[in-house]
Amino acid sequence: MKKVDISILVGSNSDLNLIQETITILKEFGLSYSLNIASAHRTTDHLKQCIEGAISAGVKVFVAVAGMSAALPGVIASQTILPVIGVPVDGKSLSGLDSLFSIAQMPKGVPVATVAVGKAGAVNAAILAVQILAINNNNLKEKLKRYKVKIANIVVKEDLKLQKDGIDKYLKRSAK
Amino acid sequence: MKKVDISILVGSNSDLNLIQETITILKEFGLSYSLNIASAHRTTDHLKQCIEGAISAGVKVFVAVAGMSAALPGVIASQTILPVIGVPVDGKSLSGLDSLFSIAQMPKGVPVATVAVGKAGAVNAAILAVQILAINNNNLKEKLKRYKVKIANIVVKEDLKLQKDGIDKYLKRSAK
Amino acid sequence: MKKVDISILVGSNSDLNLIQETITILKEFGLSYSLNIASAHRTTDHLKQCIEGAISAGVKVFVAVAGMSAALPGVIASQTILPVIGVPVDGKSLSGLDSLFSIAQMPKGVPVATVAVGKAGAVNAAILAVQILAINNNNLKEKLKRYKVKIANIVVKEDLKLQKDGIDKYLKRSAK
Amino acid sequence: MKKVDISILVGSNSDLNLIQETITILKEFGLSYSLNIASAHRTTDHLKQCIEGAISAGVKVFVAVAGMSAALPGVIASQTILPVIGVPVDGKSLSGLDSLFSIAQMPKGVPVATVAVGKAGAVNAAILAVQILAINNNNLKEKLKRYKVKIANIVVKEDLKLQKDGIDKYLKRSAK
Amino acid sequence: MKKVDISILVGSNSDLNLIQETITILKEFGLSYSLNIASAHRTTDHLKQCIEGAISAGVKVFVAVAGMSAALPGVIASQTILPVIGVPVDGKSLSGLDSLFSIAQMPKGVPVATVAVGKAGAVNAAILAVQILAINNNNLKEKLKRYKVKIANIVVKEDLKLQKDGIDKYLKRSAK
Amino acid sequence: MKKVDISILVGSNSDLNLIQETITILKEFGLSYSLNIASAHRTTDHLKQCIEGAISAGVKVFVAVAGMSAALPGVIASQTILPVIGVPVDGKSLSGLDSLFSIAQMPKGVPVATVAVGKAGAVNAAILAVQILAINNNNLKEKLKRYKVKIANIVVKEDLKLQKDGIDKYLKRSAK
Amino acid sequence: MKKVDISILVGSNSDLNLIQETITILKEFGLSYSLNIASAHRTTDHLKQCIEGAISAGVKVFVAVAGMSAALPGVIASQTILPVIGVPVDGKSLSGLDSLFSIAQMPKGVPVATVAVGKAGAVNAAILAVQILAINNNNLKEKLKRYKVKIANIVVKEDLKLQKDGIDKYLKRSAK
Amino acid sequence: MKKVDISILVGSNSDLNLIQETITILKEFGLSYSLNIASAHRTTDHLKQCIEGAISAGVKVFVAVAGMSAALPGVIASQTILPVIGVPVDGKSLSGLDSLFSIAQMPKGVPVATVAVGKAGAVNAAILAVQILAINNNNLKEKLKRYKVKIANIVVKEDLKLQKDGIDKYLKRSAK
Repeated sequence: MKKVDISILVGSNSDLNLIQETITILKEFGLSYSLNIASAHRTTDHLKQCIEGAISAGVKVFVAVAGMSAALPGVIASQTILPVIGVPVDGKSLSGLDSLFSIAQMPKGVPVATVAVGKAGAVNAAILAVQILAINNNNLKEKLKRYKVKIANIVVKEDLKLQKDGIDKYLKRSAK
Repeated sequence: MKKVDISILVGSNSDLNLIQETITILKEFGLSYSLNIASAHRTTDHLKQCIEGAISAGVKVFVAVAGMSAALPGVIASQTILPVIGVPVDGKSLSGLDSLFSIAQMPKGVPVATVAVGKAGAVNAAILAVQILAINNNNLKEKLKRYKVKIANIVVKEDLKLQKDGIDKYLKRSAK
Repeated sequence: MKKVDISILVGSNSDLNLIQETITILKEFGLSYSLNIASAHRTTDHLKQCIEGAISAGVKVFVAVAGMSAALPGVIASQTILPVIGVPVDGKSLSGLDSLFSIAQMPKGVPVATVAVGKAGAVNAAILAVQILAINNNNLKEKLKRYKVKIANIVVKEDLKLQKDGIDKYLKRSAK
Repeated sequence: MKKVDISILVGSNSDLNLIQETITILKEFGLSYSLNIASAHRTTDHLKQCIEGAISAGVKVFVAVAGMSAALPGVIASQTILPVIGVPVDGKSLSGLDSLFSIAQMPKGVPVATVAVGKAGAVNAAILAVQILAINNNNLKEKLKRYKVKIANIVVKEDLKLQKDGIDKYLKRSAK
Repeated sequence: MKKVDISILVGSNSDLNLIQETITILKEFGLSYSLNIASAHRTTDHLKQCIEGAISAGVKVFVAVAGMSAALPGVIASQTILPVIGVPVDGKSLSGLDSLFSIAQMPKGVPVATVAVGKAGAVNAAILAVQILAINNNNLKEKLKRYKVKIANIVVKEDLKLQKDGIDKYLKRSAK
Repeated sequence: MKKVDISILVGSNSDLNLIQETITILKEFGLSYSLNIASAHRTTDHLKQCIEGAISAGVKVFVAVAGMSAALPGVIASQTILPVIGVPVDGKSLSGLDSLFSIAQMPKGVPVATVAVGKAGAVNAAILAVQILAINNNNLKEKLKRYKVKIANIVVKEDLKLQKDGIDKYLKRSAK
Repeated sequence: MKKVDISILVGSNSDLNLIQETITILKEFGLSYSLNIASAHRTTDHLKQCIEGAISAGVKVFVAVAGMSAALPGVIASQTILPVIGVPVDGKSLSGLDSLFSIAQMPKGVPVATVAVGKAGAVNAAILAVQILAINNNNLKEKLKRYKVKIANIVVKEDLKLQKDGIDKYLKRSAK
Repeated sequence: MKKVDISILVGSNSDLNLIQETITILKEFGLSYSLNIASAHRTTDHLKQCIEGAISAGVKVFVAVAGMSAALPGVIASQTILPVIGVPVDGKSLSGLDSLFSIAQMPKGVPVATVAVGKAGAVNAAILAVQILAINNNNLKEKLKRYKVKIANIVVKEDLKLQKDGIDKYLKRSAK
């Protein structure tokens, strides 16, 4: 059986766009992942199989993406002792509050590691997963340090461009 | 096996105080109930047994009471085709918004009939359950009509007292 | 007089789009429905006639759709002992909070079975109505079980496609 | 039949405490009032009688006080062309947002004049009613001008005490 | 000097679109109005002149429209004993909560009659103003009764079309 | 005439308790202050006199404390070109959101420097005022640096106690 | 080294559009500024250098613009005794509440002068900075007075156009 | 130097009560911890030392507890590649929304694993830390499985008592 590091579960196929950047980052860090669509409310058995399959494949961290009454991360957390990272999705109403509250407000004993609503959360779920795996992996630790430098350098480089060009020229160029 | 009409499930024993009035009403209407403490996040198996036990006992409606990331009603709804009524509980933070959103914002295909946060919801869960059972039960229909008259009369009677006594005397007496 | 199972009432003709999926589901389950536009605040008498007409037609469940200060479900609930399902509509301001709170926060004795804001709520109102009617109808029970399997299978099938195609190909195809 | 200027309706006898200051102000301005307990959701007929009774008594403005899904002001507004002032009550959950939204977010054509949540609203409902009646009543106009001066003077007088005593002495005295 | 019934004040020219329907209604009811752009925070003196000018013109009710920290209605209320109706405007952030709270939460003694956020509020400000003026004007009273019938009939007429055409045909026609 | 550095204005005498710590800090920094009770909505003239008096006394910064529809800071800002610091007060309803939004959401051109709701804001209004005055005052600059060290040292000192005692002993002692 | 009056720091280059109007105003008032992109969470060292560089350049006020968990203004405030003005940015979710709360709710001793969310805040940050610098600069004081007159006149001028043209013609012209 | 597994940092000594249960759990799992009071806004240097000290002591996970504009978890995350768990604290205003948003809404690349507001979060921070360390520690894995069984059994045991005693006797006994 193929070993997998991270199991990503999305509650609906409409959440797949969001998860693309999560995957890009996991690949950059050389981590393997499985990706499943499984709804906590609609596919109890399929979800259970996905969770058990992921555990059999040696998964170390779950990433769960869900909107509205986002039960997916919590239901996974109820069925495993592995860390579960929850990504809230902003639906059409309530500005994402429903999803953020449903994922963050877990009862005592069954945590979900909640990250930001939407795109930032999708990226941060990947980084948090890498951070967790890096604790016992010096190679990942080095990559994380380089990543931290890289994202800092992107900001610094943009700042240098801004210093050189001034805001008007800078904005004109980025508008292209 | 004893036949039961309504299965009440609370996510924590701290929610039992809330449910006392639910039970009083069910008794008034001559309905039988089972009551279990079962957490969606902490006791997956026990919850499953409670749900299956309730279904075996011929339960027709579920009432689920939960706070915070209130997954209990939704998880029950995912495992049965019976109607599930959800009562949000106001926790120490977020004014009950977390629980209300978690229970109301269910995805397509898996409804939870959400009632008000806290005490009003605990009463209304009972009445809604009775209303559902009354559809095919003329005896319950009659009782509901009398209940509707009764709660109207309570208001009207208080209004009559108020008309007779005036507000100052009325408030003085009710302060005793 | 024609017998009708479900009475759907919308507070405004702008809510009719939302209710199309409700109707599609009721038809799938072989249920009859009546549909009226009636405003709790603008057409008290017409609403009363709609409610009385629905009751005369043997309606068993009401579905009420309303936005803003969404009094419609509650006003219906005050005039009948039948179960009332309320669907909150997200208006232009306040992200649907106004409608959700107005429908869910009913006082003791007069419940409204509140479902999710917007489209998910419109679907779930239909399913909840079917669940309620299925309690004494084995045919509907069977159909609900098949529906539950069907919506699960849709998710599982999409997951299978995703497993086969991978996310990039999957998203490319669904973008078409 | 006794002529009455203002009809005050409260949705529950638990709201009567709030309304005491409303009444005190109406009395100060020499206005007559009627006061009834009538629930929009529990006592449709009694409420209708209260409204009709008030209209027969020549009432010119309604003041309606309600919490949670506060339908009372809106239901009154649906049955009269007289101005309706709505006072939101802060319940145990949701910090008064439910009541404020339910009262303020009325649909086109059926306004409710919403004032602040709780005690400030109870006072302001009275003042707003007086302002409305004062439009065609010079005596009330004079009283309102004096009231405006009086509430200003109370603030100014406290400020003078504060200037004289300093904050420490001022707070010590008001703590007694 | 020309007599004017209603003074409409908007906090910014960007609010003028909103107020068009307010004016249409006032005209329908045969009421005269003045309309000014005046900011509570930017044009203290101009606002004062507008208020004094309106009072000199015999204005009986103020309508104030403002967004964000919507001080305009409250500042007018601080300078007059006439009723002030406040219309909250939904800005780009905070979903209109800022404006609704700023207008509704007035302190004791200085009420603002708050109506719904945005378009519904703009209409209802006009109707509320008419209701206030109708108290001593039988002609307006008659017109209000006819208006109430008219807006009811519009709903009823749409309902009749819906009954005749069915939802699919109805929606197809209204989509044109 | 006595020169004054900071004018503190509170909207109600109930806000005076909150402001005590503001004053303690201003005194520590050797700044003079005036303190007035003046309501934006109830005492327009008195407020104007307070503002003009403060300006005559050479005041350089205003601190305004207000709850609910907290117009005070904004109204001061409309009448002066001096910086105005606004302290939101948490009222009985709406958790302080009304006051925070009313103070922060000022329109273009008329800023209010908003600080935290309640006690933290009362302290920070003082510190922000000192920071503003320190720009051209080396003595204040030195004092601010010492203050920054002092508040850091308080934390560090508590941390040292905690390291020495452990959490149980630490909490026991602080409970006394 | 070139002397600079104001240091503007944005947490991301996506915030640069927002800050253009800030800069326009600073230029109008003849103030010099530096502008840097520096993230509190991604570029700790670069941010520190920006802050130290700004202080070396004699900066007197910081303006910090950030969205989501907007730590930038607070982190700057923790490293300087100069006043820090924070501009909240409205992200894709949560309507700007996250950013507003993160910037306004600073703990005792470390204030951030918070202005409105988004564009109004970007303008007001500039004006507030000018107000602070004007305390000891009569030239700036005069310019602020003229600015206050100018923004008042813009409103008054629009009002005059409105009086002349009427609302229909006015709106038609501004729609062009 | 003593090796430490978890570094707990609280933003204020007022948060220490909250963290007691965190520590109890860590001890139960045989994990070592360090505990420091360090404010992100008041003690930049001390915080840096705490973070560096923790890293030197071999810490593998950070737990950061903070209220209001809760920058502590994010600032730690900006200075380490280790996972940071953030516990939001409910302050006196805004119901904990400020803290929850500040901790959860981190920008891309710098995640904080957010848990529930208050006591549930304090417990869950400990469990999440254990889950993270258990990935490479079979002993901890076994303990987590037992813990999961234990917290399930507590619920099941209470349910058994409830079945035996009935709700009235159960509540009477627990009230003692």
